[in-house]
Amino acid sequence: MRVSQFPLATLKEVPSEAEIVSHQLMLRAGLIRRLASGLYTWLPLGLRVLRKVERIVREEMDAAGALELLMPCIQPAELWQESGRWEKYGPELLRLNDRHQREFCFGPTHEEVITDIARRELRSYKQLPLNYYQIQTKFRDEIRPRFGVMRAREFVMKDAYSFHIDEASLDETYQRMYAAYTKIFTRLGLDFRAVAADTGSIGGNASHEFHVLAEAGEDAIAFADGGDFAANVELAEAVPDRDERPQPGEPLRLVDTPEAKTIQALVEQFDQPIERTVKTLIVRASEQVGGGLLALILRGDHQLNPIKAEKLPQVASPLQFAEESEIRAVIGAGPGSLGPVELPIPIIVDRCAAMIADFGAGANVDGKHHFGINWVRDVPLGPVADLRNVIEGDPSPDGKGRLRIVRGIEVGHIFKLGRTYSERLNATVLDEQGQPAVLSMGCYGIGVSRIVGAAIEQNHDARGIVWPTPLAPFQIAIAPINLHKSQRLREAVEDLYRNLTEAGFEVLLDDREVRPGVMFADLELIGIPHRVVLSERGLDAGEAEYKGRRDADPRQVPLAELTTFLRQQT
Amino acid sequence: MRVSQFPLATLKEVPSEAEIVSHQLMLRAGLIRRLASGLYTWLPLGLRVLRKVERIVREEMDAAGALELLMPCIQPAELWQESGRWEKYGPELLRLNDRHQREFCFGPTHEEVITDIARRELRSYKQLPLNYYQIQTKFRDEIRPRFGVMRAREFVMKDAYSFHIDEASLDETYQRMYAAYTKIFTRLGLDFRAVAADTGSIGGNASHEFHVLAEAGEDAIAFADGGDFAANVELAEAVPDRDERPQPGEPLRLVDTPEAKTIQALVEQFDQPIERTVKTLIVRASEQVGGGLLALILRGDHQLNPIKAEKLPQVASPLQFAEESEIRAVIGAGPGSLGPVELPIPIIVDRCAAMIADFGAGANVDGKHHFGINWVRDVPLGPVADLRNVIEGDPSPDGKGRLRIVRGIEVGHIFKLGRTYSERLNATVLDEQGQPAVLSMGCYGIGVSRIVGAAIEQNHDARGIVWPTPLAPFQIAIAPINLHKSQRLREAVEDLYRNLTEAGFEVLLDDREVRPGVMFADLELIGIPHRVVLSERGLDAGEAEYKGRRDADPRQVPLAELTTFLRQQT
Repeated sequence: MRVSQFPLATLKEVPSEAEIVSHQLMLRAGLIRRLASGLYTWLPLGLRVLRKVERIVREEMDAAGALELLMPCIQPAELWQESGRWEKYGPELLRLNDRHQREFCFGPTHEEVITDIARRELRSYKQLPLNYYQIQTKFRDEIRPRFGVMRAREFVMKDAYSFHIDEASLDETYQRMYAAYTKIFTRLGLDFRAVAADTGSIGGNASHEFHVLAEAGEDAIAFADGGDFAANVELAEAVPDRDERPQPGEPLRLVDTPEAKTIQALVEQFDQPIERTVKTLIVRASEQVGGGLLALILRGDHQLNPIKAEKLPQVASPLQFAEESEIRAVIGAGPGSLGPVELPIPIIVDRCAAMIADFGAGANVDGKHHFGINWVRDVPLGPVADLRNVIEGDPSPDGKGRLRIVRGIEVGHIFKLGRTYSERLNATVLDEQGQPAVLSMGCYGIGVSRIVGAAIEQNHDARGIVWPTPLAPFQIAIAPINLHKSQRLREAVEDLYRNLTEAGFEVLLDDREVRPGVMFADLELIGIPHRVVLSERGLDAGEAEYKGRRDADPRQVPLAELTTFLRQQT
Repeated sequence: MRVSQFPLATLKEVPSEAEIVSHQLMLRAGLIRRLASGLYTWLPLGLRVLRKVERIVREEMDAAGALELLMPCIQPAELWQESGRWEKYGPELLRLNDRHQREFCFGPTHEEVITDIARRELRSYKQLPLNYYQIQTKFRDEIRPRFGVMRAREFVMKDAYSFHIDEASLDETYQRMYAAYTKIFTRLGLDFRAVAADTGSIGGNASHEFHVLAEAGEDAIAFADGGDFAANVELAEAVPDRDERPQPGEPLRLVDTPEAKTIQALVEQFDQPIERTVKTLIVRASEQVGGGLLALILRGDHQLNPIKAEKLPQVASPLQFAEESEIRAVIGAGPGSLGPVELPIPIIVDRCAAMIADFGAGANVDGKHHFGINWVRDVPLGPVADLRNVIEGDPSPDGKGRLRIVRGIEVGHIFKLGRTYSERLNATVLDEQGQPAVLSMGCYGIGVSRIVGAAIEQNHDARGIVWPTPLAPFQIAIAPINLHKSQRLREAVEDLYRNLTEAGFEVLLDDREVRPGVMFADLELIGIPHRVVLSERGLDAGEAEYKGRRDADPRQVPLAELTTFLRQQT
């Protein structure tokens, strides 16, 4: 392509509407334009990138035996009423009426439609397993669309749905999709992690998220530096870094601490290591254990994980913290002076808090703390549970290495849905015994348009986008200096353009009459991986100037070796 | 692909929901399934065909220098209010509100959005001409969706929009699009006609429709058997088949015709050739000529064309026929007895009616007709105009051959929009003089999903679809007889499948354990152009059986020559 025929739409200013780098760069590089809140037009340069993502996704889905189809955007309310989601799905579901006042929605996902197809088309277990996918436009009416295509309202998604006679078959396809996703994100040239995830609102019983690692990511991910373990921080199991509690070394003592209402103050005023303090959080107990209050004991440097706490049978769900007045009435002290010793309510102790000795905590008397507390000797150890968020440096739950915590952008998600939808929509086939069996289902999503934003979050510098080669709209840019002043240069440029194009490269020839500085800035902003500069002077020397997008400096390459050289670079 | 991994979804029964052959066959062949009225899922087999259409359209648009982008489905009402179409567009426009009660629509077309992009992005005439296109999902809330994908509510369309500094540039791109469309429909293997068309509701000043010829078409098209002329019947110019009126040969005579209230009765009872009768239609005259009534005189065998009549300055627009009471009050006779002789109101005479002699017509007295009427001698010839629909056998308006009339399905439409949208949205660039100039626009649509239905309307037989090769989901089907009973046959089949696939063919291997009759019926229903049957007996003889989808009988081909033979066929 020549820039004269494929105009760039770069912007010098950082658009005020964009909060994060990828959004700014997508606007500045002319990949997208905003139509309305959360609605974006993909300009020709951006669409080339989007199509590359689509192609890789499609090739790997096909290779994994999935069958592509295309379902409508607009879905009738009746199916969503059957699944129960017409009521349950909040305002993110864009509901609408047609001219006959029949109710429809713009599909944010297609479980209902595909399950309807399955129940009509499938008769026998012999037709299974089947895995259908589509690459299609979806709509979620986000309350606050932001970050450009990363959290847009209208977006392109690859969604796949598999059907099975039993769990074993579902497991097999789930593993196959896990492998396909791994291949897809590897081929896209992205640094990513597959992590165990909560199943969220879609419902089901096992899922993994695929995250592109980037600082602007909305999710925190824990992964092991010595093995395969990776999980959403909210779900990662927190394990203590020792197997045995040290023996008591200090006597229990009661100390006046009038100025120490926080762990931080305690640590500073009494030179007590924070790892040998505990905090005592008072929550409501579940009806199952008779209600009332319950104390959760964590190490002073750890944070409560509400999702883990909520899952405990003793804890009321949703998690509710007790009011100060209630705490005072029951315990006789305020939240800054609580501790396990002589506490008049049941306790649950975090695994790590259970492994410390000689620790400090409130004495359940305002202005007083205990130091030198030891479990068993001074206070019975209550039930022990995993109550906290993992932190950087924690041992990996699988014993292989230590955890690191990074931020990620969710770009893929695979679920075992089980029979959630097939039961509600009564999707059955006849099994080997000729009996109707409810289908098992899996579903597998990839945020195709979001990937473009995520790739930029992960791959940019001060000058612009730095595309991974598989996503680059063009692999090579030719930037001639003063092209319009030299017939000889024009011929050399045309020869090179033709040779590289014929060699299979996608080449962008910048044939504009602009200063080299403008040209270079644009080509760096739009992130073309390889830049070749041709000039009269270069021709005299038989050389072209080459610069990789990540290189600090350009280098000279003999013209005769240029194609071979570029092949080696790409 | 193997049928075991790419299951067919063929149906034996003709679905009751389908009125026309293409819709029936698309359901029976398992190309589509209905989700709701006018909403269809493209099953894997159908999607393969749809993608082939898309690819050819995309390649030719790219080759014609158009730039692909992708605009959102959901469009804000504000832009449609600016263009004035929010009010004017009827209930076909699917309007909806987002969670903040802001108004949007699901775009049936994208003039507003692209004009908004143009006014933001374009600054100078130097950036022109530009032609943007997309292949995208649209929605039109048809009052009675029917014919499957041919008149669906949600559909895939290629829409292109070009921008120009002047009419000359618009003309050039319009011609280029005309040529690209011709190439597209030719490459698709369809019998089509480009016809001059009315501009309809989009507004503008020149347009051509591209029709796939098929009996089920909703439009009638006139085209010359001896030249290039082709036009929508409503717009085709009707020319008389003689240059001069014959000399009078009969005297004028008044005859009692009590039983002849219609042209048909007159012809039968008085042995008068219908080509020598006229009918007299009384319509309202325009205010421009003072109002009142006006008579339109046509040959008895011709039909009034209301569009042509309405365009005449003397005729009130919209066209209104006079009531019988009014006719009696002014003329003194009923509609069955009217004629030009001594008619007390002005007349306009159709070109053909003006070329006849010795003709019959009502005498403006109930129960009486004149015979032997001649213009000039018996009645002054009023203004002459083209008032009628063309009919089969009319001379072509360009003098080359005679007209034939066929039915067509509109699959493409190119328009010169001019400045309709750019004026309303104030889309300007600076011209050579540095002055703001309103952009000229063209727009160019192709009904991508409709083409699949239209292709089937044109290409089918009693056994099913007969795909033109460029649209076929697979070019070759391998149908082995009793595959599962012979290891030797399995090996031969796998060899052939591999060879043909490696030779670049898309091959469907029917590896089901079904009777040959079932297999053949399915493969013919889904319309695979070439079928190869392998059997034990064939292997013994060193032969395969080949049958082209249009062939009456199969023939034997030596196995060694099979690939070469198939290359020649495809």
